[in-house]
Amino acid sequence: MSFNSFGHLFRVTTWGESHGPALGATVDGCPPGVALTEADIQPWLDRRKPGQNKYTTQRREADEVRILSGTYEGRTTGTPIQLMIENTDQRSKDYSEIAQSFRPGHADITYHQKYGLRDPRGGGRSSARETAARVAAGGVARAVLAQLVPGLRITGYMVQMGARGIDRARFDLEEIEQNPFWVPDAEAAKDWATYLDDLRKSHNSVGAVIEVTASGVPAGIGAPVYGKLDSDLAAALMSINAVKAVEIGEGIAAAALTGVDNADEIRMGPDGPVYLSNHAGGILGGISTGQDVVARFAVKPTSSILTPRQTVTVSGEETELVTKGRHDPCVGIRAVPVGEAMMACVILDHILLDRGQTGGLRGRIG
Amino acid sequence: MSFNSFGHLFRVTTWGESHGPALGATVDGCPPGVALTEADIQPWLDRRKPGQNKYTTQRREADEVRILSGTYEGRTTGTPIQLMIENTDQRSKDYSEIAQSFRPGHADITYHQKYGLRDPRGGGRSSARETAARVAAGGVARAVLAQLVPGLRITGYMVQMGARGIDRARFDLEEIEQNPFWVPDAEAAKDWATYLDDLRKSHNSVGAVIEVTASGVPAGIGAPVYGKLDSDLAAALMSINAVKAVEIGEGIAAAALTGVDNADEIRMGPDGPVYLSNHAGGILGGISTGQDVVARFAVKPTSSILTPRQTVTVSGEETELVTKGRHDPCVGIRAVPVGEAMMACVILDHILLDRGQTGGLRGRIG
Amino acid sequence: MSFNSFGHLFRVTTWGESHGPALGATVDGCPPGVALTEADIQPWLDRRKPGQNKYTTQRREADEVRILSGTYEGRTTGTPIQLMIENTDQRSKDYSEIAQSFRPGHADITYHQKYGLRDPRGGGRSSARETAARVAAGGVARAVLAQLVPGLRITGYMVQMGARGIDRARFDLEEIEQNPFWVPDAEAAKDWATYLDDLRKSHNSVGAVIEVTASGVPAGIGAPVYGKLDSDLAAALMSINAVKAVEIGEGIAAAALTGVDNADEIRMGPDGPVYLSNHAGGILGGISTGQDVVARFAVKPTSSILTPRQTVTVSGEETELVTKGRHDPCVGIRAVPVGEAMMACVILDHILLDRGQTGGLRGRIG
Amino acid sequence: MSFNSFGHLFRVTTWGESHGPALGATVDGCPPGVALTEADIQPWLDRRKPGQNKYTTQRREADEVRILSGTYEGRTTGTPIQLMIENTDQRSKDYSEIAQSFRPGHADITYHQKYGLRDPRGGGRSSARETAARVAAGGVARAVLAQLVPGLRITGYMVQMGARGIDRARFDLEEIEQNPFWVPDAEAAKDWATYLDDLRKSHNSVGAVIEVTASGVPAGIGAPVYGKLDSDLAAALMSINAVKAVEIGEGIAAAALTGVDNADEIRMGPDGPVYLSNHAGGILGGISTGQDVVARFAVKPTSSILTPRQTVTVSGEETELVTKGRHDPCVGIRAVPVGEAMMACVILDHILLDRGQTGGLRGRIG
Repeated sequence: MSFNSFGHLFRVTTWGESHGPALGATVDGCPPGVALTEADIQPWLDRRKPGQNKYTTQRREADEVRILSGTYEGRTTGTPIQLMIENTDQRSKDYSEIAQSFRPGHADITYHQKYGLRDPRGGGRSSARETAARVAAGGVARAVLAQLVPGLRITGYMVQMGARGIDRARFDLEEIEQNPFWVPDAEAAKDWATYLDDLRKSHNSVGAVIEVTASGVPAGIGAPVYGKLDSDLAAALMSINAVKAVEIGEGIAAAALTGVDNADEIRMGPDGPVYLSNHAGGILGGISTGQDVVARFAVKPTSSILTPRQTVTVSGEETELVTKGRHDPCVGIRAVPVGEAMMACVILDHILLDRGQTGGLRGRIG
Repeated sequence: MSFNSFGHLFRVTTWGESHGPALGATVDGCPPGVALTEADIQPWLDRRKPGQNKYTTQRREADEVRILSGTYEGRTTGTPIQLMIENTDQRSKDYSEIAQSFRPGHADITYHQKYGLRDPRGGGRSSARETAARVAAGGVARAVLAQLVPGLRITGYMVQMGARGIDRARFDLEEIEQNPFWVPDAEAAKDWATYLDDLRKSHNSVGAVIEVTASGVPAGIGAPVYGKLDSDLAAALMSINAVKAVEIGEGIAAAALTGVDNADEIRMGPDGPVYLSNHAGGILGGISTGQDVVARFAVKPTSSILTPRQTVTVSGEETELVTKGRHDPCVGIRAVPVGEAMMACVILDHILLDRGQTGGLRGRIG
Repeated sequence: MSFNSFGHLFRVTTWGESHGPALGATVDGCPPGVALTEADIQPWLDRRKPGQNKYTTQRREADEVRILSGTYEGRTTGTPIQLMIENTDQRSKDYSEIAQSFRPGHADITYHQKYGLRDPRGGGRSSARETAARVAAGGVARAVLAQLVPGLRITGYMVQMGARGIDRARFDLEEIEQNPFWVPDAEAAKDWATYLDDLRKSHNSVGAVIEVTASGVPAGIGAPVYGKLDSDLAAALMSINAVKAVEIGEGIAAAALTGVDNADEIRMGPDGPVYLSNHAGGILGGISTGQDVVARFAVKPTSSILTPRQTVTVSGEETELVTKGRHDPCVGIRAVPVGEAMMACVILDHILLDRGQTGGLRGRIG
Repeated sequence: MSFNSFGHLFRVTTWGESHGPALGATVDGCPPGVALTEADIQPWLDRRKPGQNKYTTQRREADEVRILSGTYEGRTTGTPIQLMIENTDQRSKDYSEIAQSFRPGHADITYHQKYGLRDPRGGGRSSARETAARVAAGGVARAVLAQLVPGLRITGYMVQMGARGIDRARFDLEEIEQNPFWVPDAEAAKDWATYLDDLRKSHNSVGAVIEVTASGVPAGIGAPVYGKLDSDLAAALMSINAVKAVEIGEGIAAAALTGVDNADEIRMGPDGPVYLSNHAGGILGGISTGQDVVARFAVKPTSSILTPRQTVTVSGEETELVTKGRHDPCVGIRAVPVGEAMMACVILDHILLDRGQTGGLRGRIG
C-alpha cells in the first residue's frame, strides 16, 4: 500500500501541497536509456497550467519542472526520477476563513475528521494543484512510450460541460487545440464559452465529462482478474480530484444494449483480426484488443463558489460560507491533460508488466 | 503487483477456473478472534448460486464452501483463510466449438493473444464462476465488519435492466428479496420478468446497472490521493466480469450539476455534522463522510448468445459463431451479491488501513 | 502488504496449518506456456518430505501435491496456480499440553500475544510444515527457469551442523545425494550421523548452516536500492522457520577482509568479463554479476525437545515443559530443499522484473 | 514492487544521485498530528555527515534537510513528507577515469550491464550518499515512535572492525558518543584508531560489523510468514550499501547451539513473562517478544581504494585501476546511523501494520 502512489512497475508517487514550497512526483521503475530532459515534460505541464484564459483559476504559476535525479546526459538511468515544481504564487491569506469552516462538497471536512488537522492553505494536499505532478509523471511515461511503441497516441478532450454535450457528427480532433475547452466540436466551443461566462458571473460552477483515447495500444496488455487494464484505469481516473464516474467504451450505456448489438464482430484484416465496432472500448476481459482504448470520466462542479452555502465550523457552529480565492468555474477543463497523463502512465505500466510476465510474446491468430 | 489479488491489509487472492476441480479465495490479513465458520459464508454464496431460477444459467453448482485454514475452534486466527469451492457440474463438451473460435465481445481472443493459449472450458479463468470466490471472501469481510462496526450494512440491488430503470418513488428495500432480480421496485420486477423472457426466447441478452450502498460507514475512512476509498471501489467494481462503468454518488450525472446544486450542505445534528443531501455518495476527497457510501456499476450484456455473430478462428478463418451452453441472459442479476462482496472487502480494508495509520482517532467537530 | 506472500511479479502466497485439512501455495504471475504437471513438482517435495530417515520427524505425510488451477493440457496458462497438499497424518492429541504452555524458543507465546489465540495443533501456522508449500512453489519456479534460462542450476547443501563444519577441500557436490544431510563432504556425513544420534538420545537438538548456490544466473538481474537481489534473498531466507542469519558471498567474514583482498578482480574472457574470485557471492550493488549467486543461512536448533525447560502457562503460572510429539532433532536438514525453493522463486521473480523494466537488454562490455 | 521503496504502511522512497542537484526521501503513510520540523531530523543526519573526522570521506556536505511537504504548523498532516537534501560539494572531475573502467567489487559493472548506461559521477545512485535519505526518513520514524511508544530506544554501534572485535565485558553504551567509531568499548576505540590509520596509509580499506538494538518494543509486533519482523529487518539492512550479512540475536552462532542451550526460558515477572536469556534477539516466529530486538550486519570493505586492482574497461580492455577521490577507509563507520534509521522505520511500520490488523489488542498471559 502506498496512499500516494500508483502503478506497479512504472510507479508514481506524488507529494506536495498547494501552498507549500514545492510539489512533485517520484517516478520509480522507468526503463533506462530513454531520452528525457525537462523540455520533454514542460509542454504537457504548460497545457494544464492555471491562468491561461479566463475560464481557469487566475493563480499564476509557471509550473516549471526540474528533474532532480534519474537522468544522465539526457537519458534515463533506470533509477528514480524526481520531478519538482516550485510553488511561486501562493496567497495564503485568501484562505483564512476556510481554515475554520468546511466548504460543502469539499474534502475539508473529511481531512479534518480523518487526520485531526489539515493544511487549509489552498486546500493543501486536496488541491487540484496536485495534478501538476501527475502531468509531469505522464510526460515521462509519454517519452518512454514514444520509444517503446512509437505509433501509440493518447488524446483527451471534453465531451460534455454541464448538461451540454457535443455533436459526434461534428467530431474533429483538429479543433481540440483551437479552443479553451479542448472540445472537438467548434460549435460546442462557442456555446460553452457563453454558458460558462454566465455561470461564472452568477457565482456558480459546473461539471464536465472528459474522454481519453489511446490508439496504437498493442493487443494483449492487461491481465485478469484484479490486474485488469480497465480496473487500473478506473482507479487511476477516479483518483483525480472531483471525479465521480469512470466509463470504458460504452460505459453506462452498455447496460441498455443487448448482446446482439454489443458484440464487436470480428473479421480478418491483412494484419490480423479487425473489429466492426468498438463497444468494448478496446478492452475485453481486462486485456487490450488492439482497438482504441476509450475511457471517460465525469468531474463534478467546483465546490469553491461565491454563492453562500450552509455549513458548520470546526467548533460545531452552523454558518454560511462564501469561498473567495481563485477557483476554476469548471475544473473539468484542466482535467483533460490530467486524464491523458493517467492514461499514459497506466498503459506504460501494463506494457512493462506484460513483458515481465509473458516476455511480450503474442499468441498469433491466423 | 498481484494480478489476481486485491486489497491492501485485508488482501484477497482468487484462483481457479470454471471447469477445473475447484476454485477459491485466499484471504490474508484478516483480524484475529472473529467468529467464522462455513455457515457465516454459505448464505452469501447461496444468493449468487447459479440455477436458482429461469433467469440464470442452468448449471447446477452447490457452491459449497470449505474453510481449509485460518480458523481454530470457530474463530479466525489472523493467518490466511483458504476458502475452497469444488466444481461439480462441469460439462466441458459444451465448449468444444469455442476452443477454435472467439466469441465476439468475450475475453477468448485477448487471453489467446496475451498468453498464447487459454483454457476454453467454460471460459476458464474469465468465467463468471470466478465471482463465487469473491462472494466467499466478502462473507469473511462481513463477519469481521459485524464485529468491528456493528451498525454497518451493505445492500446491493438492480436499478436498471436493459433500457428499463426503476421508479425511485417506489423504492422499497423490502422488495429486494421478493423477486429474482433484487430490484427494490415491485412494478419493475414484473415488467423485467416479461422483458427478460422475451429476450431469452429471441436468443439475446441484456445489460444492467447495479447499485450498492453501505450505511453506517464511519467518517474518515479512505485516504488521498491514490489510496482514495472511491478509487479502490472503482478498481474493485470494474474488476468484476463484464463491468464497463463505475459511479460514485451522482456519478456521470454530476457533470450536469452546478456547484450550487451539488453542494451537500452541512448542519449540526446531535451527534455531529449532518448533510442535507448526498450527491457525493458518502465520499469527499477520497475519504468517507459518514453518509451512505453509494456506488453503481454497469454490466454489459452476456456475450455468449444463441444468435449467430461474425468472428474468426484461431487459425484466422472467418466464421459465424452461435454460443451454446448454459449462460445467463442477464449476467447483471448475479452480479448483485458480487458487488456487495467487493464493497464489503474494500470498506473493511480501508477501516484496517485507517486504524493502521491514524489509530482510528477522529478529528472532532464541535 | 501481504503477510503471507512474497515475490513481486512471480508472487507466492502460502496458506494452511500443520493439522488443518490441507495447506498450499497460490502462485500468481507465472509466465504462460510452460510445461507443468504434478510430476514436475512432486520430486522436490519428496526431498523435503518428513519421515524419510531417522534424523527427521517420524510424522508420515505423503506430501502429495495437486494442481487445482492455472494449467491446461499440461501447460501454464498465466493464471493463478493453486498447489494443494492434504494433511493426512495429524495427531492432534500429541499437542494437548502445549495448548496451555509456551515452548521456550518457539512462536507459541508471540502468536498468543499478537492474536489473542492460536492454533496449538502441531504449531498451527508456525509449523515447519508450511515450508512444504514453499517447496511446491519452488517447483513451479524451477519449471519456468528451465524454459527461460536453461543453464541455470540451483543447489543447496549443509555446510555446518552444530559446531561441526565441512572441509572445503573435500567439497564434492556428488556427495549431496549420498547422505541424509545433503552434505558435500563424505567424512562430515559420517561424523554428523554419530553426533546427531547422540544428541537425539540425549533429548537435545542442534542448529545448522545451509548454503545455496545458483549458477548460470545472467548478469544484470536485481535492482537498486530496496529492490536489490540480495535484499530480497535475505527476506526470503530469513522468512524460513528458525532462520537467524543470512549471508551473501563472504557474509560476516567480509567484515574481516581488507579492500585489497575483497576486490574480485576482473579480466576479459572470450564471452565477456570474468572474475578472479567471488567474494561478492555473485551480487554487486544488488545486481547479479553473472558469477554464482551464493547465499547461506543459519537455522537455530529445534525448540521442541524432550529435555524439560522452564516456562509459563497461558494463565501465567510457572511450569516446566517437555515437548513430546514428533520433531526433527536438526530442522536444518529439511531446510535444504526449502532454501533452494526460495532461491528459485527470488531469482525467477527478478528475471521477470528485469525484463519488465529493461526488456532484458544488456549493456555490452567489449 | 517499487525498486526504491521499502515499508508497507510507513513507506519510504528514496531518490537522488551522489552528484546530482539533490537527493531525498518521500515518506508516505506517516501518522498525523506528530510534532515534526527539520530540527527533529537534522541531528540524525549530522551523525552520518561526511568529513567529520579523518576516518571518513573528506567530502564536505552540510546535509541540510528541508521538509517540502506533509507538515503544517510543525505537525505531520498524514500526507507525504518530502525530505530534500541538496548536494553542495560535488567534484565530478574526480570521477573521469571510473567512467571508463569498472572498480572491482563495486556496482559500476552491474549497473552498466543492467541499464546499458550509468551515472559515473561519484557512483551515481550506488553511492553511500543515498543513505543520507534513509537517515532523514529514520528521523521521521523516530519522531513518530517517540509519540506512539515513548519508552522505545534504538541504538547502533560497531562491534567489529576488520578482524578486531570488542570485549563484551567492557561493553559500555556511554562510550559510543566518545569515539569516532561508535564503539561501546574504550580500549577497542584506541586500538581501532591506530589500525585504521595504518590501513589508510597503506591505501587499503576494511569491513565492519554493526549491531543495532531496539529496547521497549512491545510484544506482538510482526507477522508470519513472509511478513516477519526479522524478514523485513533482513531486507532493510541487506539493502544498505556494502552489507553482506544480517544476523538476528545469536545469528550465525545459533547454528552451533543445542536446543537446550538456545531455549530462552520464561518466568513470570510482575508485568508478565520475563526471559532468562535472549538468544532469539527479541523475535520468535517473526513476532516480537518484548525483549530487546537485536540485529547485526556486516559491511564489506570500501571497494574504492588507492591500491591498483585489475579490471576491464567499458570497451573490454584489460587494465589496472586506482580509485582516487574521497572515500571512507571503513564505510561501516557511517553505516551505524543508517542501521539505526532502518531499524526505526521497520519497527514503526510493523507497529502500524499490527494495529491495522489486530487493533493493537494483545493476548494476555496471566
